[in-house]
Amino acid sequence: MTSTPSASGAAGSPGVAVIGYAFMGKAHSHAWRNVASLRPGAPGVRQQVLVGRDPEAVAMAARQYGWAESATDWRAVIERDDVDIVDVCVPGHLHGEVAIAALEAGKHVIAEKPLANTLGEAEKMVATARAAREHGVHSMVGFNYRRVPALVLARRHIAEGRLGDVRQVRVSYLQDWLADDAAPMTWRLRRELAGSGALGDLGSHAVDQVRFLLGQEVTAVNALTHTFVRERQGVDGPEEVSVDDAAWGTLRTDGGAVVSLEVTRMATARKNALGIEVYGSNGALRFDLESLNHLDLCLDGSEGFRRVLVTDQDDPYIDGWWPPGHVLGWDATFTNQAADLLAALAAGEEPTPSFEDGLAVQRVLAAIEESAARGGSCVDVDA
Amino acid sequence: MTSTPSASGAAGSPGVAVIGYAFMGKAHSHAWRNVASLRPGAPGVRQQVLVGRDPEAVAMAARQYGWAESATDWRAVIERDDVDIVDVCVPGHLHGEVAIAALEAGKHVIAEKPLANTLGEAEKMVATARAAREHGVHSMVGFNYRRVPALVLARRHIAEGRLGDVRQVRVSYLQDWLADDAAPMTWRLRRELAGSGALGDLGSHAVDQVRFLLGQEVTAVNALTHTFVRERQGVDGPEEVSVDDAAWGTLRTDGGAVVSLEVTRMATARKNALGIEVYGSNGALRFDLESLNHLDLCLDGSEGFRRVLVTDQDDPYIDGWWPPGHVLGWDATFTNQAADLLAALAAGEEPTPSFEDGLAVQRVLAAIEESAARGGSCVDVDA
Amino acid sequence: MTSTPSASGAAGSPGVAVIGYAFMGKAHSHAWRNVASLRPGAPGVRQQVLVGRDPEAVAMAARQYGWAESATDWRAVIERDDVDIVDVCVPGHLHGEVAIAALEAGKHVIAEKPLANTLGEAEKMVATARAAREHGVHSMVGFNYRRVPALVLARRHIAEGRLGDVRQVRVSYLQDWLADDAAPMTWRLRRELAGSGALGDLGSHAVDQVRFLLGQEVTAVNALTHTFVRERQGVDGPEEVSVDDAAWGTLRTDGGAVVSLEVTRMATARKNALGIEVYGSNGALRFDLESLNHLDLCLDGSEGFRRVLVTDQDDPYIDGWWPPGHVLGWDATFTNQAADLLAALAAGEEPTPSFEDGLAVQRVLAAIEESAARGGSCVDVDA
Amino acid sequence: MTSTPSASGAAGSPGVAVIGYAFMGKAHSHAWRNVASLRPGAPGVRQQVLVGRDPEAVAMAARQYGWAESATDWRAVIERDDVDIVDVCVPGHLHGEVAIAALEAGKHVIAEKPLANTLGEAEKMVATARAAREHGVHSMVGFNYRRVPALVLARRHIAEGRLGDVRQVRVSYLQDWLADDAAPMTWRLRRELAGSGALGDLGSHAVDQVRFLLGQEVTAVNALTHTFVRERQGVDGPEEVSVDDAAWGTLRTDGGAVVSLEVTRMATARKNALGIEVYGSNGALRFDLESLNHLDLCLDGSEGFRRVLVTDQDDPYIDGWWPPGHVLGWDATFTNQAADLLAALAAGEEPTPSFEDGLAVQRVLAAIEESAARGGSCVDVDA
Repeated sequence: MTSTPSASGAAGSPGVAVIGYAFMGKAHSHAWRNVASLRPGAPGVRQQVLVGRDPEAVAMAARQYGWAESATDWRAVIERDDVDIVDVCVPGHLHGEVAIAALEAGKHVIAEKPLANTLGEAEKMVATARAAREHGVHSMVGFNYRRVPALVLARRHIAEGRLGDVRQVRVSYLQDWLADDAAPMTWRLRRELAGSGALGDLGSHAVDQVRFLLGQEVTAVNALTHTFVRERQGVDGPEEVSVDDAAWGTLRTDGGAVVSLEVTRMATARKNALGIEVYGSNGALRFDLESLNHLDLCLDGSEGFRRVLVTDQDDPYIDGWWPPGHVLGWDATFTNQAADLLAALAAGEEPTPSFEDGLAVQRVLAAIEESAARGGSCVDVDA
Repeated sequence: MTSTPSASGAAGSPGVAVIGYAFMGKAHSHAWRNVASLRPGAPGVRQQVLVGRDPEAVAMAARQYGWAESATDWRAVIERDDVDIVDVCVPGHLHGEVAIAALEAGKHVIAEKPLANTLGEAEKMVATARAAREHGVHSMVGFNYRRVPALVLARRHIAEGRLGDVRQVRVSYLQDWLADDAAPMTWRLRRELAGSGALGDLGSHAVDQVRFLLGQEVTAVNALTHTFVRERQGVDGPEEVSVDDAAWGTLRTDGGAVVSLEVTRMATARKNALGIEVYGSNGALRFDLESLNHLDLCLDGSEGFRRVLVTDQDDPYIDGWWPPGHVLGWDATFTNQAADLLAALAAGEEPTPSFEDGLAVQRVLAAIEESAARGGSCVDVDA
Repeated sequence: MTSTPSASGAAGSPGVAVIGYAFMGKAHSHAWRNVASLRPGAPGVRQQVLVGRDPEAVAMAARQYGWAESATDWRAVIERDDVDIVDVCVPGHLHGEVAIAALEAGKHVIAEKPLANTLGEAEKMVATARAAREHGVHSMVGFNYRRVPALVLARRHIAEGRLGDVRQVRVSYLQDWLADDAAPMTWRLRRELAGSGALGDLGSHAVDQVRFLLGQEVTAVNALTHTFVRERQGVDGPEEVSVDDAAWGTLRTDGGAVVSLEVTRMATARKNALGIEVYGSNGALRFDLESLNHLDLCLDGSEGFRRVLVTDQDDPYIDGWWPPGHVLGWDATFTNQAADLLAALAAGEEPTPSFEDGLAVQRVLAAIEESAARGGSCVDVDA
Repeated sequence: MTSTPSASGAAGSPGVAVIGYAFMGKAHSHAWRNVASLRPGAPGVRQQVLVGRDPEAVAMAARQYGWAESATDWRAVIERDDVDIVDVCVPGHLHGEVAIAALEAGKHVIAEKPLANTLGEAEKMVATARAAREHGVHSMVGFNYRRVPALVLARRHIAEGRLGDVRQVRVSYLQDWLADDAAPMTWRLRRELAGSGALGDLGSHAVDQVRFLLGQEVTAVNALTHTFVRERQGVDGPEEVSVDDAAWGTLRTDGGAVVSLEVTRMATARKNALGIEVYGSNGALRFDLESLNHLDLCLDGSEGFRRVLVTDQDDPYIDGWWPPGHVLGWDATFTNQAADLLAALAAGEEPTPSFEDGLAVQRVLAAIEESAARGGSCVDVDA
């Protein structure tokens, strides 16, 4: 019999602290718990500490999600010697404060998307990240859909020119959780906390995918936003909804593509439908997040869309998972993301997407908001 | 043995002349040839005369398509006593001239879409149609997709409130016949002949469907158009493409809905993909012209989309066709359209869509062009 | 102005008589009415006479469907000099009588499928057809799904070896019109009139497709049949259902393929779902009649299924129809069938599928019934 | 700061040993590592020891998959006091030996499917399980697809009568990994090791689902099996394939349903396509494992199939996972299975499916083999 230290206690493995234990904290915990299983021989991590405000609730979550400890004071945690990576899963308006402090404490940081609620804060985060990078301290923003195998494959085909010149992109992110007028008020519908509505939440993924898939920058936008239900029932009576329910944009890229974008929380019958279509001069592709293992491909001028189940051993990430035909879940995107982050850190390289990528997305979103405020007129995106 | 006059020779049946024998002339001929079979006991028509410029070619087409005669002079034909209905299938820039002359000659007119290439011409057509109507002479514009059974069913569900308040509509019309840079120059790519590109050709259908399905008017638009391939090979060398390859718009309606619109001839792998999605507060629906017998329905707050094959006897038009499950083709939309026109004429009523409907679509398209010319700024649609 | 004889009156065109004016008579009338439009320059037909038992009803149908005359005595009609082709659309138990008489009267014959209700009758029909052929009188059985463009394309790919060796075929034909226990008794559920139930009606199409697509003969079968609802309400009270509601079979071919077959009228929610899957050593394909313009193709060892809209100009039959992306309906299969019949007759060739093909299908169906009667044991198909 | 014991070290949590660390051992490890996160407050497990023959390889696997230790002697492991549950992931011909020994050592056992390679061995396992159960020692067979949320939902709808009486079931399990003639010989193709081919591997899942979904027993079968490629290249030259490549069956149940079954490893372009269709007198449903979060439902006599994304909080298992629209992967079925096993053990109840369920499946498979050996004749299933 051979005694082996468990993956989560491996000496020399980096220690991780996750700040936040709600939906995103749970998803990131899942990733840290499973990341070692993806890569034979790769270093695992120590699931060191889960941080939250409510001591009992976070303690229970820590037990449930496999953490060695829980804590309530994130400032103390980021100073700990046994913490090497700080994973920021707090609400968006707190991203900057936590991420900057952690970087300044010399910890690698991964921050959930969107990078920040305001452009100013995002810029400060980038400045800090750049300074930290000089000292070998790295950072990453958590656009997890960059780790969907089908989308990585899509990007590869585009980069290899198998669609020809990309001309039109259609990207939509449709959800329905606000379609019901009677859906109650939440903090997500208050501008001061959430920054924006569907635009920041869903539009940030959509814009990131455009940049990721095409390897191009958005240079100008025309856009509109709209709030269909302007008042919702709060705990103490009706409250104003101060963010958008939906946003529409037409984006131009520095590669000459035109992108139509539509994001909404009002699309009855659509649960989590991030839909992407890319049309090039010699091919096309389609993707739908609700069927995230599938990709429709028309390559090299062939006819019609070929529907591919992206689960072969040579498909992105799959060699760490299961045999062909055994589909992955949404959670796998986080596990893949954690693996990529660890690999970059082990190699002493900056992981992607960087905070600069996060800022680039924020600038597009800001241009969208400005265009919307100006009745849909064209607005250039700051470089 | 009972001797019966053939449907096309029925005494008292209206006589039809089709002006134009290309793609649309062929499709309309198909409709006139088959319309009698749709409605037991309904009067048929006399397929009197097919008109074209090339005497031999039109004579052969007439034989092939079931016409009693062919002719080359449309002006003479519209004066004939044995012609009651003039069906205008000439290119768009000639619609006005033929339709107005025919109406003034006291003939009922059906004109292919779009109503005209210019707003001015469309307005003249409407004025003439109104005057003619006073004398019991009727007119119709040929938006044949109003006769897709699935779309008529969609409209019915929306009108009955089974989707609740309609908030977002996504309408796209994607084709790929210009995706190849080497596709040659045609008259359809010259502004002076075609009026516009994808916008007029595909956008007119898209806008008409918005009006048809929602029963609402478009009041304001933001839009862009783009020509990806600015020069194509003509017979005598490269020529400038002076119309749009694609157009994008965000439309608002007087019912409070927001519509995203995208039409293009550059969507590699999409052949004839008129896609419509309607999201309401309590339901949703989806349609794709490439599967025109299917409709995806979420009604009355139920869960997910129910995929319905719209071929039941109580579905629109189906009682004249085949038993459940026996699908219709694209051509059936013209036959249904002809049947509706005949029924309206028999009842002495104005058929729909009227020239006014055609003009309303043109006004939206004109606003789209104006917005595009102004960099995407908001433009109101003239009432 | 050029005066042209109408297609249906073209001198020298063959004259057609359709015997039967119910569902199939209507569909065949549609085909004869439209066949001339499919092939520029090809001879049309004279729609001479429609035959039925009820003089008033058949006269109205004749007017509606474009026939010059109606008649009630098919024996007189098949003797007429102005009738060249007799199209047999009567119920199956009368196929033999009418077809044999017509052939003996020197008329070309097309008979609806299945060829006959009994093997003995089918054999007599084949004997008569062979004798007639000696004198240049031809015959055809109406397996119209051989004229679905997607299935012709499928056959072509299989014949060219692009699927490799075909090993497994899955063919099912699922309808739901008897799923409801309360669906009333009809003649189709009486063995003495209908011969069999789902097996003959749907199974004949399924077996014909296997022979057509693979170009192989079925050599042995194991099969079961079942009647789920043994009694249904007739006009005068409950009656026994004496045919099968559903049938299942495992068929082997002389090419080494194994075919699973399932046909049923009890498949709730399926309207007209003839589904075919073919798996070869180097490719595969899928088809569903409810989406009859689509074909899913995996050719030459490529990955996944490519979904093709079979509407390109070089796809089977399409050059006679519409531009790419404009889908065909179920009725087009009959029009294509009529065109092929006319082309064969014009060339003095025997059209396909022949009565021998019809008999071959009957022999497989008979073997299926025998196997079912013997508890599913293996039964060889007579050559 | 609160110090919490990690889930995997929780005092009082049951200790688990997994025997086998290949594909199934990895999947089960994944489940044990994640099971605690599914149920707030539920006890987790100790991932105690992973067992395999190669000491270095199993040690690396143990580290990677989160186990405290590795070991090579399963007989020693099942005697350990810190092991409460033995999870049998060895090849099928060893299931009996390990499971029986572990049960006799007083450990709860979960054994991968199929329960055993021979009926005799399966019967011994059931006898042992029954004896153990008397002493509070429980057992389970790992038909993980019973834990697909969509299939649990399907079963619920069937049980509640929302499909009416189930009449026809179509179940197929199509894979393509042997479609290529050049695919090499493996132990899975040798009867003495694998027991059978597609039949045992895929057919066991298919038969279990029939029993699970319908709550009915299979009483009689007609079946065939076939080996398309009879020889494959082994390490030392060509070897005989002694198991089936594909199997077909028609099964009858004690509830009056007829089931068609087809399983194969030769279905080019199909990766892991377990397809299930259930047709009842008043509804129907469809499922495809390659899209395992979706279920097509026709309930209570409604029209067409409603496509549901089974990810709502009240869908089976989902409350332990993610918000609506965030899809699960294939691996989730094992995590759900582990959670159900732990819940049953905590309640002192026998988990399902039991070894008896596993034996019932084996009896159906044995009847299929017997029928195939007798040319497809009907064979009753022993009760």
